[in-house]
Amino acid sequence: MSATLPPLPKEMEVLRQVPLFAALQPETFARLAQAARIERHAKGDIIFRQGDTAQSAIVVVDGFVKVSRLSANGDETLIHIFGRGESVGESAVVARDRYSTTAEAVGPAVVVRVPGALFIQTAREFPDLAFAIINEAQAKVIALMDEIEILKVQTADQRVLRFLLSLCPPDVDTCTMRLPYTKGDIAASLGLKQETLSRSFARLKAIGIEIDARQVTVASVRRVEEEIARLNQLV
Amino acid sequence: MSATLPPLPKEMEVLRQVPLFAALQPETFARLAQAARIERHAKGDIIFRQGDTAQSAIVVVDGFVKVSRLSANGDETLIHIFGRGESVGESAVVARDRYSTTAEAVGPAVVVRVPGALFIQTAREFPDLAFAIINEAQAKVIALMDEIEILKVQTADQRVLRFLLSLCPPDVDTCTMRLPYTKGDIAASLGLKQETLSRSFARLKAIGIEIDARQVTVASVRRVEEEIARLNQLV
Repeated sequence: MSATLPPLPKEMEVLRQVPLFAALQPETFARLAQAARIERHAKGDIIFRQGDTAQSAIVVVDGFVKVSRLSANGDETLIHIFGRGESVGESAVVARDRYSTTAEAVGPAVVVRVPGALFIQTAREFPDLAFAIINEAQAKVIALMDEIEILKVQTADQRVLRFLLSLCPPDVDTCTMRLPYTKGDIAASLGLKQETLSRSFARLKAIGIEIDARQVTVASVRRVEEEIARLNQLV
Repeated sequence: MSATLPPLPKEMEVLRQVPLFAALQPETFARLAQAARIERHAKGDIIFRQGDTAQSAIVVVDGFVKVSRLSANGDETLIHIFGRGESVGESAVVARDRYSTTAEAVGPAVVVRVPGALFIQTAREFPDLAFAIINEAQAKVIALMDEIEILKVQTADQRVLRFLLSLCPPDVDTCTMRLPYTKGDIAASLGLKQETLSRSFARLKAIGIEIDARQVTVASVRRVEEEIARLNQLV
């Protein structure tokens, strides 16, 4: 059957690797992928806005999408920065809810948008999609609990070191990389004031981490891991 | 059909008011309720343990259940205290995951335990249960984002005032009530050190809040609301 469907564009291939879609039956996946639209966004583009009726689920194919909330008194809290392969909005769509956050491209970004009505209809007919959405929601609950644990327990230096370690490629010791987004967004995503982040960056020179504008050089990844372990002992 | 089933015990009636079960078809609800077990717990009883295979979903019928996580270095982070009508573990069960937290009775507590295998089987056959689980997961994601917003943005006094306000009955101005759990658990659930909580309690005397052991007297709820609004402006 799916042989009669037109081939999927290259950008859709990444959907198969996304946790939300990875375990779907071929028919369920084809149904969603055929209706999905690819969107290219520039830095600052709003992908969806808090309070709007949730009309589509979004999968990040390339770049970063910043998800933040506006509180009643107008403060913006950055909740999470989503990267390649992460999905957002699918539970809100199925719950026929409003988006509880605003999603904004942090730089140039490519996303796939899956229409919500089709999502609901498919989840009703194909339990594998309903279960995939539950699994993904469970993963998001755990990720948010991790975040709460970090905010309640970890110091600024621990948060910054963990973040820098997440940027280092596996199996290297010395590495140089570019910060994926601005220092303001990094501070917000770690729950720090920007001056606290700057002071932490300054302290980390002592363990061989140099930060020059958006370029980071880590002299020894092993040293960073040892420092994280040492700080964990002190808490 | 359900007329041939034995009547449900009184404690099961609360299940119908729980968000997770409220919108279910009568057949779907009856199937789960008939297999559910009522459990009475004493303070400190472990209801499930982090890392164990998730084998049942839990609904709190009476009392409070504290859900916390143990990090790799042995720190315990209190994530949330669940009260009457709140459910926990259902996404982990359906995702065939391990419990990501430990659930412990904070005082005497009554819970209903729904066997996980039945939960999965029913969600597969009845899409209304699968959708109810997704809705509940979405509500949990939003509650956790609220928590992150509070941790990132609000000061100790704001957190304490919001918590005290949540204890006041509606439509009263002066009220006296008992703290639902210990100051240690309150501090942990608000992401504060216990001494920070005590200092905040001391400052709140100035706006008419008296705390004597576990008894709280609020001279004017309106005054508390005004103070919350004032602090929100300052942030």
